[in-house]
Amino acid sequence: MREFIPSAARFADLPARFPLFRGATLTGARIAYETVGKLSPRRDNAVLILTGLSPDAHAASHPADTRPGWWEAMVGPGKPVDTDRWYVICLNSLGSCKGSTGPASVDPATGRPYGPDFPELSMEDIADAAAHTVRALGIGRLACVIGTSMGGMSALSLLARHPGLARGHINVCGAAGALPFAIAIRSLQREAIRTDPDWNQGRYDDGAYPERGMFTARKLGMLTYRSAQEWDVRFGRTRITAQPREDDGPFGHEFQVESYLERHARRFTRRFDPNSYLCLSRCMDRFDLGESCGGGTDEALSRISLERALVIGVETDILFPLHQQEQIACGLSAGGTDVEFVPMDSAEGHDAFLIDTARFGPPVAKFLTAF
Amino acid sequence: MREFIPSAARFADLPARFPLFRGATLTGARIAYETVGKLSPRRDNAVLILTGLSPDAHAASHPADTRPGWWEAMVGPGKPVDTDRWYVICLNSLGSCKGSTGPASVDPATGRPYGPDFPELSMEDIADAAAHTVRALGIGRLACVIGTSMGGMSALSLLARHPGLARGHINVCGAAGALPFAIAIRSLQREAIRTDPDWNQGRYDDGAYPERGMFTARKLGMLTYRSAQEWDVRFGRTRITAQPREDDGPFGHEFQVESYLERHARRFTRRFDPNSYLCLSRCMDRFDLGESCGGGTDEALSRISLERALVIGVETDILFPLHQQEQIACGLSAGGTDVEFVPMDSAEGHDAFLIDTARFGPPVAKFLTAF
Repeated sequence: MREFIPSAARFADLPARFPLFRGATLTGARIAYETVGKLSPRRDNAVLILTGLSPDAHAASHPADTRPGWWEAMVGPGKPVDTDRWYVICLNSLGSCKGSTGPASVDPATGRPYGPDFPELSMEDIADAAAHTVRALGIGRLACVIGTSMGGMSALSLLARHPGLARGHINVCGAAGALPFAIAIRSLQREAIRTDPDWNQGRYDDGAYPERGMFTARKLGMLTYRSAQEWDVRFGRTRITAQPREDDGPFGHEFQVESYLERHARRFTRRFDPNSYLCLSRCMDRFDLGESCGGGTDEALSRISLERALVIGVETDILFPLHQQEQIACGLSAGGTDVEFVPMDSAEGHDAFLIDTARFGPPVAKFLTAF
Repeated sequence: MREFIPSAARFADLPARFPLFRGATLTGARIAYETVGKLSPRRDNAVLILTGLSPDAHAASHPADTRPGWWEAMVGPGKPVDTDRWYVICLNSLGSCKGSTGPASVDPATGRPYGPDFPELSMEDIADAAAHTVRALGIGRLACVIGTSMGGMSALSLLARHPGLARGHINVCGAAGALPFAIAIRSLQREAIRTDPDWNQGRYDDGAYPERGMFTARKLGMLTYRSAQEWDVRFGRTRITAQPREDDGPFGHEFQVESYLERHARRFTRRFDPNSYLCLSRCMDRFDLGESCGGGTDEALSRISLERALVIGVETDILFPLHQQEQIACGLSAGGTDVEFVPMDSAEGHDAFLIDTARFGPPVAKFLTAF
């Protein structure tokens, strides 16, 4: 079990005993974060970014770590999330393996990684840990919480559970709860990992590692992060021409789309802790803002108090389909928030927010400029 | 390796040496079929049904086998494909495991099942074997070829390779070629089987059987046979209440949609030969009518000579998306065929033709009545 911590990550300690939504308690946990930009003397220019399942806290390059971040095109001086004006905090989610406490972290009670003994985590815990971190940084009120993908879930949870912590919200390809198609996909991803004999009930190591399961999980993910339309144009029926092919066995790969999935999966399998993947994946399935807050999803959304919100979705997104962002927009609006809903016709599916930044940039810039 | 042959199946021998599209030769192969209805004295009322990947030749109940068939609601006396008028022939595809020669059949050269040594099969071979069977039944011209799903591919191949063999055609959720999203899904299904250690390069038996791989392949299939919209309504976020749950391990099943996939997968894994699955799955990926006939897909479709065609697709189908049926309709129409294109707004996705027969019945009945 390994953690993958960005070089410039800083850490905020959670309370010594941090109570979890489902009843357990985490001891001595911490949250990894990075900041870009400068906090204003009035401490009123902080923008929090909550990430999807796999990214770390390195959203953008900055002097302490000049590597491009996972949202480099969107965050930086003069960019849509303009760090000349905003003090941007990006968090690694609780339960992840990129610096925040998760299954790959050492359990202070045993001196060994938690592994499968990491307590049951919920989206509400990810939200609470983020809220605690913001306050630990001396910020009483955020200008804006931005949540992308899974981060769009944890952001809603944070807003519902910590009223007044943010004035504005940008929800990017998020959802107020998981629906059965996405649950089915994630269930199959988890099953691929859990049934890999090398998962060994969560007690793997670098030698005996559930590589095959992680591989399948990632490929299945890629199928839902992009869109059929994009692939029709990008790959069509083009064959693999390179010799030797990566998978040349009986019934082996033959088309470029297969080779593309293979390359992406190879890059991922050893760079994300499998138990952490299982843990965050299940958090998403279990997330239901309406169930968590009581009263149903629409009511829970309408009770969130914000000045303004921007909700963006993508027409070709099959994992977090557009009607889920529409629900967020309508629900927030019903509660009196001034909401702008932007459906994008990007071809890139769920991942469009990472790729089609030419289209995502302008509404985000406009929203933040008006603040 | 096992074959699963319906009790009333009859058999047509292919020529002693049957040449395959990719160069090999099959020796002593046969095709399993069933017929419902009565061939007219002028032999002009035959309707051929070509199936998807998994069905057998038992499309509908008849006196010799009264079990309901896989298209029971559509085929029978007074039904849309009315067996009071039509002599309906349903074939099991060459390469399958339900009576027609395939990897689970005995290789006459060795006296043992072909297994992984079954020669490379193509959609063109499935089509040629079907054409041969029709002629062996003494039918020079079919009134209509109906192809559903993969059968919509083999039907187009048959029409292109055997001009004049049919007057009419009904293409149901078919395609003139495989596109990258479907290729990626099937590639992942094959990978799940191939990487199951019990697949053993295709040399499994009932004891050491790639059950886990077949399981994953089937679940992945179910994800693409239905639609997110259907599941939102059908399952929503309902939990499994039955105790014990089928999969109660760590990160085990919790939602009804997971339990549904589990049940469907369990019913399938031991009832379809894995090598046969691999073989037919690859036939679909490789199928490209334009490449096969030369000149591109639209031209290949326009060269097909028919009197009339009905092309049906489903708006929620993500495996054989609607634009593929639209392409078939446009291509056939450009060649002078009188084409009716019917896009259905069924919620059931690709499988709608098996379920939403209330909607599929009327256009099929109308089309065949007018013949």
